[in-house]
Amino acid sequence: MPEQSASSLENLGRRVFNRRLLAGGAVVATGLTSMSAAGSGSSASAVAEAAVAPAGGAVRHMTLYVEELADGQLGYGLEKGKASIPGPLIEMVEGDTLHIEVINTLDIDVSLHPHGVDYEITSDGTRHNNSHVEPGGSRTYTWRTHAPGRRADGTWRAGSAGYWHYHDHVVGTDHGTGGLRKGLYGPLIVRRKGDILPDKTFTIVFNDMTINNLKTGPDFKATVGDRVEIVMITHGEFYHTFHMHGHRWADNRTGMLSGPEDPSPVIDNKITGPADSFGFQIIAGERVGAGAWMYHCHVQSHSDMGMAGFFLVAKPDGTIPGHDGGHEGHGAAEKSSAKEPAEDSGAAHAH
Amino acid sequence: MPEQSASSLENLGRRVFNRRLLAGGAVVATGLTSMSAAGSGSSASAVAEAAVAPAGGAVRHMTLYVEELADGQLGYGLEKGKASIPGPLIEMVEGDTLHIEVINTLDIDVSLHPHGVDYEITSDGTRHNNSHVEPGGSRTYTWRTHAPGRRADGTWRAGSAGYWHYHDHVVGTDHGTGGLRKGLYGPLIVRRKGDILPDKTFTIVFNDMTINNLKTGPDFKATVGDRVEIVMITHGEFYHTFHMHGHRWADNRTGMLSGPEDPSPVIDNKITGPADSFGFQIIAGERVGAGAWMYHCHVQSHSDMGMAGFFLVAKPDGTIPGHDGGHEGHGAAEKSSAKEPAEDSGAAHAH
Amino acid sequence: MPEQSASSLENLGRRVFNRRLLAGGAVVATGLTSMSAAGSGSSASAVAEAAVAPAGGAVRHMTLYVEELADGQLGYGLEKGKASIPGPLIEMVEGDTLHIEVINTLDIDVSLHPHGVDYEITSDGTRHNNSHVEPGGSRTYTWRTHAPGRRADGTWRAGSAGYWHYHDHVVGTDHGTGGLRKGLYGPLIVRRKGDILPDKTFTIVFNDMTINNLKTGPDFKATVGDRVEIVMITHGEFYHTFHMHGHRWADNRTGMLSGPEDPSPVIDNKITGPADSFGFQIIAGERVGAGAWMYHCHVQSHSDMGMAGFFLVAKPDGTIPGHDGGHEGHGAAEKSSAKEPAEDSGAAHAH
Repeated sequence: MPEQSASSLENLGRRVFNRRLLAGGAVVATGLTSMSAAGSGSSASAVAEAAVAPAGGAVRHMTLYVEELADGQLGYGLEKGKASIPGPLIEMVEGDTLHIEVINTLDIDVSLHPHGVDYEITSDGTRHNNSHVEPGGSRTYTWRTHAPGRRADGTWRAGSAGYWHYHDHVVGTDHGTGGLRKGLYGPLIVRRKGDILPDKTFTIVFNDMTINNLKTGPDFKATVGDRVEIVMITHGEFYHTFHMHGHRWADNRTGMLSGPEDPSPVIDNKITGPADSFGFQIIAGERVGAGAWMYHCHVQSHSDMGMAGFFLVAKPDGTIPGHDGGHEGHGAAEKSSAKEPAEDSGAAHAH
Repeated sequence: MPEQSASSLENLGRRVFNRRLLAGGAVVATGLTSMSAAGSGSSASAVAEAAVAPAGGAVRHMTLYVEELADGQLGYGLEKGKASIPGPLIEMVEGDTLHIEVINTLDIDVSLHPHGVDYEITSDGTRHNNSHVEPGGSRTYTWRTHAPGRRADGTWRAGSAGYWHYHDHVVGTDHGTGGLRKGLYGPLIVRRKGDILPDKTFTIVFNDMTINNLKTGPDFKATVGDRVEIVMITHGEFYHTFHMHGHRWADNRTGMLSGPEDPSPVIDNKITGPADSFGFQIIAGERVGAGAWMYHCHVQSHSDMGMAGFFLVAKPDGTIPGHDGGHEGHGAAEKSSAKEPAEDSGAAHAH
Repeated sequence: MPEQSASSLENLGRRVFNRRLLAGGAVVATGLTSMSAAGSGSSASAVAEAAVAPAGGAVRHMTLYVEELADGQLGYGLEKGKASIPGPLIEMVEGDTLHIEVINTLDIDVSLHPHGVDYEITSDGTRHNNSHVEPGGSRTYTWRTHAPGRRADGTWRAGSAGYWHYHDHVVGTDHGTGGLRKGLYGPLIVRRKGDILPDKTFTIVFNDMTINNLKTGPDFKATVGDRVEIVMITHGEFYHTFHMHGHRWADNRTGMLSGPEDPSPVIDNKITGPADSFGFQIIAGERVGAGAWMYHCHVQSHSDMGMAGFFLVAKPDGTIPGHDGGHEGHGAAEKSSAKEPAEDSGAAHAH
């Protein structure tokens, strides 16, 4: 049972929370019960089925503050004084609508530009459409999503589901180059009804030569058997290759094969460029066990210069074989997880 | 109805033209009727089904002139004095054969090298095979295509369908680096029988730090509901990431999901390198409405230096919300569409 | 019948060898009989079906020597004095286990880090886990693989099959930058029961600005009709685009479409970055015939500087149209194939 499972799923609102509760899991104070086979063993039903996303259709409201951080960088935050880099994980289910009021606490123009979701040109977040936010001002952006279906002409319309992201588009240049460099970016997941839900979600952003704007990569912690979701985003100038030791994923929409007929390649290394994003779920330590599993950019000079961190997979007793917790050079112990448990202040507004 | 729909499909020859006519659409002087749900409403049959590619098997002849343009760049053209950058869109259906007589009007060697199609080594377009064209000379290249099917050994043989391209392979260096830099490249689409046909096709080539050899990206115009096809090609030295605002595509053969079981990711941003090509179809403004939707390379310095343009999606009345038509910095009004309606002079030779 | 078919498949051990023998082929001294339609014609059964991989489950032992080559570069080899760049092709079938004793003949630390397979943290090959090999020492690494299947929670677990690779992770830097630069890398294929087996396998590694650490690309030889498998790996600093003339592949797990419903794009050019790998099978000269078909990096300056070679496809009589065998500039005749027929010294230990 993950002792500090990040409640990323709370972003889906009470709908998911309740569903999971109904599914038989005990809800702990800091997060959600693990439904993975390895993580729970108290009942047959608990291991019988992975939790899945409910139907969408909710209309939610959220406030997003753009703030200067203590070190001069910039961040998005769900509450005043809580801005982070990356910004909070925003989750939607196909069919959901999200109204986001962006409050600009800075003395420069900022904006919010999303990838993947449906939005009118007034929510584009670009200067040429005057859809940015002036200093001290606020603006509400509306993101809609839709399920797949068939068009009147018989063709198939893809749904909104995907591992997307959002970022500023006006700080520094008309393409937000300054905003991105300083940290104005965050992950956005749109799930499909029936998509498997993870126990934890971690966001890894290769932004120029940093990971999540840190000079060395942060460490991410899980316990063997946790269903861990990774959202991988790239920003800035350079191309990178994302590699994980001991774990693999499918190069398709969900990062998981749908079954034996899915022809998608299974990979553990992927080239990415600015604004590319993908995601996947892995079972921590599956068939490889506990350990300090490195993840890094595989461009040699990039990893040598610090673009590396650890996916720390502990045994149920909390120990990590061969890892003293005081290693140097690749992510220090005090590094915070990039994934900040983020309360979805908008959940209360749903339905 | 698109007032200036580009008749890219005329390249398929009279077969398609007639088929579309038979399908119930009124043929207008400058192009083909729109079969999209949003674009026509006069009859039930018009909205019932998207137009599709016919069976292949035609043998066509085409002449391609290599010329110097007024500004010193080089281009391929279907008629004398009509060379363009990119060169003309060439469309085939699996099973078609195309004989292309290349006439070299320059005083240097040039060639024609295709990606994707079947050709004997004598049509390779490379110097080591002596398959280039001498100054003032001509040479006929033969491209064949084939439908998918099963081999004698039971394995599946892929068909030729794809978003391909052609380019010079001998100007400047034995890899055509000089020819590519000056503009000797163009799009090539091979369709499969039954593939959905678009209303308009636009070609976007990221060639070094230009788009279609222009210092800022050209604008592309459509009306809400148009089925727009984008062919995206990269050339030169650099990697890029292609991004469109407000529109997405599937990362598979057609750029469209085949149905609910298709596991392909839906994306709006894709890393590409020299000679990569892909294509997709979108419904202009679908679920997002009219607007000046930016497309750009998402490598920050590239977009900042001008690798950006607009996909201008107008309402049926021709207006574009928030767009005065006189914006600066991202593609000027006088910039021509990269897609030149190209008459298929070879169509008459089919069958 | 290919006169010098490389016996890459011997790596699968006696199981495959016997299976092929049982399938009706005559075993020749230097390799395996060709089962391709074009390569054999003596019986109906010989052309009826492509040979496929057997079920996995074998436990094998292998010794891998790390040695300095005559030119100061480094290589892995299956026997003393036989190290090569790339290292030997290692093949497994899902379910197989491989114990590899690495013998370090150098006076510096080295290691063996695999992509794709299952291994405990003690077989990671990284310094932080103390899983490297000291000068003059040896260490046994264990790689396991598994077939796809359903987990207890109902989700699908991908199998290990893929075109993977292995490399040093400690020479020069903690990411093996020095080891990779000097040649400590090799191909690893994990097949699925039922996967089509090739007649020949060639490995192409874009390592910085070299191909297989050679300043110009090596040539690879086949006869029209051979089923040729390419394993393409990238290492080092740069991104590249891999292009083949006259041949295409599917961008999926096997590089071949599984059938008419497979939505994977068929391509002949692909962007890759360090530690990316993919593979595919082509029928040499299929629908294009014999010839000196160029393969190269399509980044223009890279191909201009020598990242190009030839896939030499001969007619059954051994001739190659338009190729005098003495061409210059793109791979000299004396260049050895990167694929060294490698005896699987561990085969005797299986079962």
